[in-house]
Amino acid sequence: MEKQHVSAAVVRRLPRYLRYLNDLSRREIVRISSEELSRRMALTASQIRQDFNCFGGYGQQGYGYNVDHLRQEIAAILGLPNQKKTILVGAGNLGHAILNHIDFSRHGFKLTDIYDNNPALVGTSLVGVTVHHIDDLEQRVAADLPDMAIITVPRAAATDVVDRLHTCGVKAFWNFSSLDIRYDDSLVESVHLGDSLMTLRYHLEQR
Amino acid sequence: MEKQHVSAAVVRRLPRYLRYLNDLSRREIVRISSEELSRRMALTASQIRQDFNCFGGYGQQGYGYNVDHLRQEIAAILGLPNQKKTILVGAGNLGHAILNHIDFSRHGFKLTDIYDNNPALVGTSLVGVTVHHIDDLEQRVAADLPDMAIITVPRAAATDVVDRLHTCGVKAFWNFSSLDIRYDDSLVESVHLGDSLMTLRYHLEQR
Repeated sequence: MEKQHVSAAVVRRLPRYLRYLNDLSRREIVRISSEELSRRMALTASQIRQDFNCFGGYGQQGYGYNVDHLRQEIAAILGLPNQKKTILVGAGNLGHAILNHIDFSRHGFKLTDIYDNNPALVGTSLVGVTVHHIDDLEQRVAADLPDMAIITVPRAAATDVVDRLHTCGVKAFWNFSSLDIRYDDSLVESVHLGDSLMTLRYHLEQR
Repeated sequence: MEKQHVSAAVVRRLPRYLRYLNDLSRREIVRISSEELSRRMALTASQIRQDFNCFGGYGQQGYGYNVDHLRQEIAAILGLPNQKKTILVGAGNLGHAILNHIDFSRHGFKLTDIYDNNPALVGTSLVGVTVHHIDDLEQRVAADLPDMAIITVPRAAATDVVDRLHTCGVKAFWNFSSLDIRYDDSLVESVHLGDSLMTLRYHLEQR
């Protein structure tokens, strides 16, 4: 597989392809043409063929794509079968929702630790993983460096928590705080819910 | 204000400007130069001046921007002072987190109704708003059409719920389901958490 040649734009589309293919698989649809997939996804068939050609094709003229084969290939390109270790910091409302809503193993991660500063939570278990006190962060992270950290602490705590994690060697963040995380050596994927809602509010105003 | 001339790219940056200006305001910083703001936001000073010129300037040569004036202007452009009615459908983990995490009034919305199909939730109150049974959706929405609906139902329920809302006249959606909502006459802002996490997983693999 020539992963190197997959452009950022194609990468952004891969999870979406996977969503549609998983949906087809659940409905026991075995194969699909690029035309039919394009209709469902509101992309052009040539766009789809071009995207899939980036990583080696998989279609057969007049036959279409084998749904299960294609979803396994896309999952492999995304790295999903190989689980990376992630921790979650901040087990409040948002942290709880992420823990209960996301099946980490299906997204290429294994949740190894949860951290919070709430004494009522420390020592308890959420989704089968123990909550540790934030004071133990450095010691535990040094002993078992996670590949990524999910930041679901309140805004006021975010700068401190992220700096501490970065100092300990964590170089990837799934960031739900309103803080913009910027390190030259780190991967950051931010979900700024407030920005998203305000953008929608703006467009409602213009309508 | 010449709102018409604000490009989509500028609109995407406005909530981020507002976040930084709110932060400055909390720290009681009264004014800021475009150079200082650019350093904090990792934008160029000329980009910032150009963005603010889109909606009338507000800077004074050698003085900089008045923080409170600027945040009020940006809030006004986004429409935040005028609250639109929103409902939330799906008061599970994710719905709860959104309800507790987002201050709707600060984002230009007023939460008017919550819907769920869980008998244990129906009739209770979350963040001061009553949870109604999903069966009452059509009747209540017809009586008091909301400007927007937040979709936090599980995937299996999403298609049905969104179709019902659209039929009732709801034409804007803040969508947390993995469904892609597509109507020619509707505004849709989607937060696809799984896509976001898989994109991060891909980049971790490449590193």
